[in-house]
This record gives sequence, structure tokens and C-alpha cells, in this order.
Amino acid sequence: MPSAIKVSVIGAGSAQFSLGLVKDLCLTENLAGSQVTFMDINPERLEMIHKLAARYAAELGADLRFEHSTDRRAALHEADFVINTAAVKSHHHQRAIRDLAARYGYYHGRVKLGNFYNLRLMLDVAREMEQICPDAWLIQSGNPVYEGCTLMTRETGIKVCGLCHGHHGVHEIARTLGLDPLRITWQAPGLNHNIWLTHFIHEGKDAYPLIDEWIATQGEEYWRTHVATRTHDIQMSRGAVHQYRMYGRFPIGDTPRRGGWWYHSDLGAKKHWFGEPWGGPDTELARPLFVENLEQRVAEMTRLANDLRASLVDSFGSTNTREQQVPIIDGLVNNNEGQFQVNVPNRGALEGIPDDVVVEVPAIVNQMGIQPIRVGALPPKIMLEQILPEWLDMERELLAFNTGDRSMLLWNALESHQTQSYDQAVAVLEELLAMDEHADMADHYRFPDTW
Amino acid sequence: MPSAIKVSVIGAGSAQFSLGLVKDLCLTENLAGSQVTFMDINPERLEMIHKLAARYAAELGADLRFEHSTDRRAALHEADFVINTAAVKSHHHQRAIRDLAARYGYYHGRVKLGNFYNLRLMLDVAREMEQICPDAWLIQSGNPVYEGCTLMTRETGIKVCGLCHGHHGVHEIARTLGLDPLRITWQAPGLNHNIWLTHFIHEGKDAYPLIDEWIATQGEEYWRTHVATRTHDIQMSRGAVHQYRMYGRFPIGDTPRRGGWWYHSDLGAKKHWFGEPWGGPDTELARPLFVENLEQRVAEMTRLANDLRASLVDSFGSTNTREQQVPIIDGLVNNNEGQFQVNVPNRGALEGIPDDVVVEVPAIVNQMGIQPIRVGALPPKIMLEQILPEWLDMERELLAFNTGDRSMLLWNALESHQTQSYDQAVAVLEELLAMDEHADMADHYRFPDTW
Repeated sequence: MPSAIKVSVIGAGSAQFSLGLVKDLCLTENLAGSQVTFMDINPERLEMIHKLAARYAAELGADLRFEHSTDRRAALHEADFVINTAAVKSHHHQRAIRDLAARYGYYHGRVKLGNFYNLRLMLDVAREMEQICPDAWLIQSGNPVYEGCTLMTRETGIKVCGLCHGHHGVHEIARTLGLDPLRITWQAPGLNHNIWLTHFIHEGKDAYPLIDEWIATQGEEYWRTHVATRTHDIQMSRGAVHQYRMYGRFPIGDTPRRGGWWYHSDLGAKKHWFGEPWGGPDTELARPLFVENLEQRVAEMTRLANDLRASLVDSFGSTNTREQQVPIIDGLVNNNEGQFQVNVPNRGALEGIPDDVVVEVPAIVNQMGIQPIRVGALPPKIMLEQILPEWLDMERELLAFNTGDRSMLLWNALESHQTQSYDQAVAVLEELLAMDEHADMADHYRFPDTW
Repeated sequence: MPSAIKVSVIGAGSAQFSLGLVKDLCLTENLAGSQVTFMDINPERLEMIHKLAARYAAELGADLRFEHSTDRRAALHEADFVINTAAVKSHHHQRAIRDLAARYGYYHGRVKLGNFYNLRLMLDVAREMEQICPDAWLIQSGNPVYEGCTLMTRETGIKVCGLCHGHHGVHEIARTLGLDPLRITWQAPGLNHNIWLTHFIHEGKDAYPLIDEWIATQGEEYWRTHVATRTHDIQMSRGAVHQYRMYGRFPIGDTPRRGGWWYHSDLGAKKHWFGEPWGGPDTELARPLFVENLEQRVAEMTRLANDLRASLVDSFGSTNTREQQVPIIDGLVNNNEGQFQVNVPNRGALEGIPDDVVVEVPAIVNQMGIQPIRVGALPPKIMLEQILPEWLDMERELLAFNTGDRSMLLWNALESHQTQSYDQAVAVLEELLAMDEHADMADHYRFPDTW
């Protein structure tokens, strides 16, 4: 007996995400009869998504209803699940920020302004949910997952679960070693974008020695010859392995994109640590390509939406995505139990981190809820050099956000490893805050009374 | 009825400190009949100190006995109090380290090797005390107080109290404002060398507005015209006031010597933030002067030791020093209660810091012990930008010390704001560890298995 629910998607204009979600819903018979409400501030995009979703479901004969709205409060009405995938500012705006910072000597955005707009949006959504659908689950699927989920769970009573793709990196390791990803048992807890492979078991045996052997016998050859076909293909890069060598645990997914400044100081360093042809996803070579690919996909979707004779099943396929949103909903609603990689308040799951900090850990999901597995502790060195410093970064970002203290933004700019003088940080901060698109932010952040 | 005790001074060759201690003991009638054992590895210096102490006490007619030894275990025998003021490496060695690092582009020691030798010595002393005088108090009076006291209290059962002079900076503020230091009530908790003036009361009224007024009306003039007469005269410097402006609480004593890298990047920055003529105590101008002054004092003491006709009371005076060691001993032994600024395991005294971290807080000292005052919390911004990052620094230093993991030293070198490339950090670390004087350290720190 299927359970009909209502899922509201905030930021549904993210076409690929929304279509993937629809696909997974169509393929989950347990959820037949459900309704999906797409919400975005872009009405054209919304209409396009709505059409595609309805046609795709019809082609598959799935029993789902769709609606769309540019009114967020209306979209939240009677929601059982809210999936927030919204990003307030465009990729083009991100680029304008990087270009401005580059004029002050910062390579590819190596000075941080924080996530004011996305955090404010997340908090607004969670607060509206408190009024409109207080029992709904919020599945946070846009960045910053770590800071945003911690903020929302502290400031509201909403149940929040953050999701990310990074942990799929484990499968890349398996494939590189010639192992069947389905026969791997693994665990990689931490903070979002900062997770570490504590256990890596292949058919009942510790598979870390296979990693060591690969590094010893094939690493150098791989780093010399491997050419990435995706901008994010850095799981086996020299940089990721260097981090493994320092910590004795492999950094997974987005984790090697962080780490010390020396991996990221300029394009030469990036290529050294993260390989050809782009030096990983965070360079002036990779980023435009990534954005171009996104835009091409939107263009292709728009074309399909307007071509009523095209088969959407042919175009998008009819197998499940790797996304966790729908399986988690199915687990919660229909007790179709599964284990997932989630971001939820710690409360003892990961040792040495305060209870009210959102951690990324495996969890058992069924009708009893999203119950994290208490995974124990990460090695102290990882805690002290990687996890706890990022805990402080997050706490500072939230304190700055909550107090509107501009001197904390300045401190942050000063702390960039690429800042060479006090005046440089003052100048880049002031010019960033003077951007037209940053008016609200400039208004929010003021210097303290003693300044 | 005076209480006769035995005080053992480790590193007693520090002439000024030892003579100050003797002076305070001579002037504390409650402790008449006590014995002081001077221990050092330098026999000539020891003999000189012993002679001076005995003559000084005799001139004052004080009832104290003295002995000396180069054998530490013998010196600890039957001690009631052990005062450790030892520094393993000379000022000249510190300079050799700075000169070497300068060749790799680091200004005045802005790459840190940690405190291996002093930590090892402290731990050795505390462990020997466990065997020889397990009930004695250890009064740690040499650096690093914070890291060392935390290490010793974690690794041994010895009662440890660390002392420092930094808090006297409050009196400099008072004097600058034209206030009588004796009429000030204040509190400045934190970590050693990282303390913040949370309360500053003059004759029952909040005196912070007087600081604000001084800054507004006299600050610029002072910074333009003030010429320091002591290398450590930076309490009212532009740098200290800048930190106050950021945090809303004044940094006290050695606190402004830390803070962000931008205060310390080169001599120009140092002079801007900490004034003429030396740019504070940590510059190539100030440091040789500081060492020269120390050496002149030792030379003068040696001269006096050899001039049997000289009056030591005339030379050294007969008023109490500002040191806390003897008054604390008097409090513990004779219940002569007082309030002191001490470094002891936190256990709830300062909110938001783990129990087993040594904090600097006020304490009531009497026969019941050294009982810290639970001072509450520092402002969250100070915690997140100043206190907790230094907590992590300390934990990393102790983890590196305890595990001998060389990659943690490398990480530390990389994290220096002055490191411009990965190879630079590798090279400076290896050359520092290759110094003859660092043989034990190089042997202790090895790269991990995965390296």
C-alpha cells in the first residue's frame, strides 16, 4: 500500500536535480500518489521543469502529481518533506567575486566572504517551516550544508538532514583498485566536505593495504599520465594521496579540495597536486567548463521541454540516480530501511565534537527516524589539524552571521594565507562589500562600537 | 610560629630570579628556618648564586639555609616546593634558530619548531617528583607555562601551578590613565600569554570608559611620540589597542605579542604596531638588547659575589619583588591568604575550555590550596579567534611531542603565514632539525608509516 506524501522543492530551477528527483520518485512505487511542488524565483525555469516532470512521469506511467509556485510560503503548505537545493547567487556572481579578489592578489577566490545569502535563505526557509509545516523534514541539498544545517538546527525546531555527493568518492577508490564497489564495506565520517575513510573493507578483509600497494606500484605512473575527464576527478590525485600520507586515512570526495593552502596557491600548484588538464575543480580552467556544462544541460532540457515528440525516458533514462533524497524519504515513510551518509546534529555520534554541531556520519533510516551510527573517534591528528579547525571556522562564520560583526569578516580576510598585508585585506573586503549584489550583506555587517 | 620548609629551585642559575626569590623569602618571617636548594647544570653559576644568597640573608639577619647541587634528584629530596625556572637552550641558540630561519625567508623566528627540550625537561622533573617528593607543589616559572603545565598535569599526579608576569600589564594601563594601581580591581582570565581584561574597576566604577577616552584624546599623540624605555613596553601600543578595538576587551601583558601575523610580519609592521625604538620585544633590534641586559646583570652579580665588601642589600634593595612564588608558598603553608594570577587545570573555572587544559585565572590561595575563581566566560569572539585556536595549537604540540610525528612539525611549518611554498617549509624544517643542538629532537620526530 503506497504512501502519498507532499514533497516541496525549494530552488527547483536546478533542472538536473529536479529531474533526478522526479525520476527517483517515479521509480519508487511505495510513494505512488505523491505530490511534488516545485518552487523557484525563476518562473520560466519553473514552468519548464513542471512540464518535463509531468511528461516524464506520464511516459513511465507513474502516479505523481506536480505543481509549481514562485511563492515559497504557498509551496510549503502541507509539505511532508522540504528539499532545499537553492543557491541565492549565480555562478556568474561567484566569478565576479573571484575576479575582484584576483585584482587584490588572491588566486581563485582564496579570500572568503562567508555564505551570508545562502545562510539567510536557509534560516528563512526553516523559520517558515516552523509556522507552516512544523513536522516536515527539511532535506538540505544545497551548500553550505555544514554551516547551514548547524545554523538551522540551532535556531529552529525543524528536523534537518543535509545531503552531499562527496562520499561516492569511496567508489572511485574501489574502481581504481579494480574492486567491485558493491563488495566494499566502508565508513567515512567527519564534517561535510571533510570526511575520512576510517574503514575500507573488501569481501571481509581490510583493503587499505591494496591502497598502499597501488600508491607504491602505480601512483607515480598514474599522476604522470592520468588526464581527468571530469573536473572533480581528484580522488586518486597526488594531493589526495599526500593527505592520506599525512593522516593515515584517505580523504574522501570533496575533502581533498580543502586541506592546506599549499595545495591551492596557484594553477601550477593545483596541477601538481590535482592533475591535468584542470588542476581539479577549483581553478580558472575548470570552473567555466563546469558552469558551461550546467548551462548546456539546462539548454538541452529547455529544448526537450519544447519538443513534445521527444521521449524523455530515452533522454534521461529510467534507472535510479545515486541521490539519497528519495530512498531516505521512502525509509522514513514506508520503513524501507537503508543506511545513508547524512549530515545531522552530532549528539555523540562522532567523539570530540560538540552535540549541536552537524556532522556527516552514516545513519540507519527507517520509520523510527534518521538514527546516526555512533562511529567513535577519528584519529587525534585528523581532529586537531582538519576537523576542529573547521569547527572553529564554522563557529566564527555563524557568530559573525548572528552578530553582524564586520571585524570578523576582516579577521577572516586577514587569515587568508594569501593576504600579504593588513591594508590588502581591508581593501579587498571593502570592495567586495561595495558590490551592488552585496548591498544587504554590507548593511548587515557593521564594525563594533570599539572600532 | 614560622613554618620551615624546603624549596628546590631547578634552573637556579637564572641569577635574577634566584636572588629575587631569596629576597622574598628573607622578607617573609613566616618562613624563617626554611631551606633553599639551588639546582642547575652550571656549577660556577650555582656557586655564585649560593654565595650571594647566603650573604644577602646574613646581611638581613634572615634565618634561611642554602645548599646547591648539580644533581636534580638529590635537589628534589624532601622538597615541599619545587620551583622550575629552567630553560634548556640558551638565548644564543634561539638566535641561531632565528638566523637559520631568516635564510629561508622567515622574519624573526616566524616559523615554530615547538618546545621539545623544555617540555621534555618539565616532564622529567614532574616524573622525578612523583618518585622523590610526590606531595610537593611544582611552581612552574619557566616557559612554556601553558603547554608545559598542561602536559605535566595530564601525565603525572603532581600538583602544578604555573606563574607568569604578564598580568602586571594591568598596572601599566592604570598608570598610563593616571590611576593608582592599588585602587584598581580587575580580572584578566584566559590562557597564559593570552589573557583579556574582562573587568577593570577604579574605586567602584567601571574604568573602561577612561581607556576609551584616553584612546580618543591621547592615543594618536602617544603612538606618535612615545619612545619605549623597556623592550616589553607595549601595553598601550597601537597594536594592543587595535586588539582591544577588535575584541572589546584589552589584551594584557604578553597577549599583544601574539595576535594575527600582520602585527609581526617585519620590522616596519612591528614598529607601526608596537612603537619605537624597537617595535616591541620580538625584533632583531630588541632581542640582543634584552639578552645583553641579562648578561650584564649576571656579570654584575658575579662581580658582587666576588666583592666581599659590597653590601648586597644596597645593591638589590630590601623590598619585596612583584613575584608571586613566595606569597603563594606563604598562603599554602601558613594560611596567609591572598589572591593570585595562576595557571592551573581549568576544571570549570573558565567556560568553554576543557577541564584538563591549564588556564590562567585568579585564585584564592590559603591552606586549603590553590582554588581558582570560577570567572565565567570570555566573549565568544575572543574564544573563537584567540583562545580556542591556541587551544588547538597546544593540543597539536602535545600530540606531536607525545607521538614524535614529524609530519606534524611539517604541518606547523607550513601553517606559518610566512611560508610561501611547500618546499620552503620542508627545507627549513629539515635544516632546523639538522642543527647539532637538535640531535635528540631529530631523533624523536619521525615521519609516520604512510609517509
